[in-house]
Amino acid sequence: MRIIGIDPGTRITGYGVVEKIGNRLVHIDNGAIYTRSDAPLSERLQTIYSELCRVITDYSPALMAVERIFVAKNALSALKLGHARGVAMLAGVNAELPVAEYTAVEVKKAVVGYGKAAKPQVQQMVKVLLNLPEIAQEDASDALAVAICHAHCYQFTSLS
Amino acid sequence: MRIIGIDPGTRITGYGVVEKIGNRLVHIDNGAIYTRSDAPLSERLQTIYSELCRVITDYSPALMAVERIFVAKNALSALKLGHARGVAMLAGVNAELPVAEYTAVEVKKAVVGYGKAAKPQVQQMVKVLLNLPEIAQEDASDALAVAICHAHCYQFTSLS
Repeated sequence: MRIIGIDPGTRITGYGVVEKIGNRLVHIDNGAIYTRSDAPLSERLQTIYSELCRVITDYSPALMAVERIFVAKNALSALKLGHARGVAMLAGVNAELPVAEYTAVEVKKAVVGYGKAAKPQVQQMVKVLLNLPEIAQEDASDALAVAICHAHCYQFTSLS
Repeated sequence: MRIIGIDPGTRITGYGVVEKIGNRLVHIDNGAIYTRSDAPLSERLQTIYSELCRVITDYSPALMAVERIFVAKNALSALKLGHARGVAMLAGVNAELPVAEYTAVEVKKAVVGYGKAAKPQVQQMVKVLLNLPEIAQEDASDALAVAICHAHCYQFTSLS
């Protein structure tokens, strides 16, 4: 079962693809999509959407997972984030992937075992769990964490 | 020059298509896209995107205009609105339409001549300017107002 995790943002969108084979979790790819800060918002959204469509085509994941957001610094940053998150989810659903959402606490619990874990702990555990040579780029690491979370939760769901 | 205006929302997204022929503004179509409140967010976004793609295919506008948002009730409503706005803008840019953004004040000034006009005044002016038989559905009327604003401003820009 191959899963793509997404950490959306208008400036940088991270993605991470993992595959669950039996009890093993295998790293397939991760990366960050950068958009030009001087480009109009509509073009930045198109870059995020088209790049994610390309990643989905390249790796054919069966499931998508995105972090569920409850809080943001302020309404303006929430609005911006919403744009990126919307087109990221659309890339999934347009490719007929079921899109799951997890809170940051759920992701941290699944990856580190502790819902209030610090970011460096999560990044370190992502590296260890996926046997990466080094800690991935920040947004890509967050995306891998969401994918790992979905791999765990999806297993529990399918066992229950 | 045919213009599509959009008033995005996760629950209801309004659209309005107008055509500028010389100095005349002609109403082509307007409508509201409703999404199921019990559907997952990803499916609601897909409905908004695919319906807007259909409208764009049906009417072949050359330009898109969307209201620019500065404030929202709170971060959560801004986040939700961002999702809908993101996929709406994506529908435009994926169809190679330049996407313009206008503030509510700019829209009111263009339609009523007064940036602090009340909503019923704007709705009434949209009806009069486009010679509609009755006031359009609320979100569709807002979308027509943005399209009218773009028709005015685009004219000024191209004359200057």
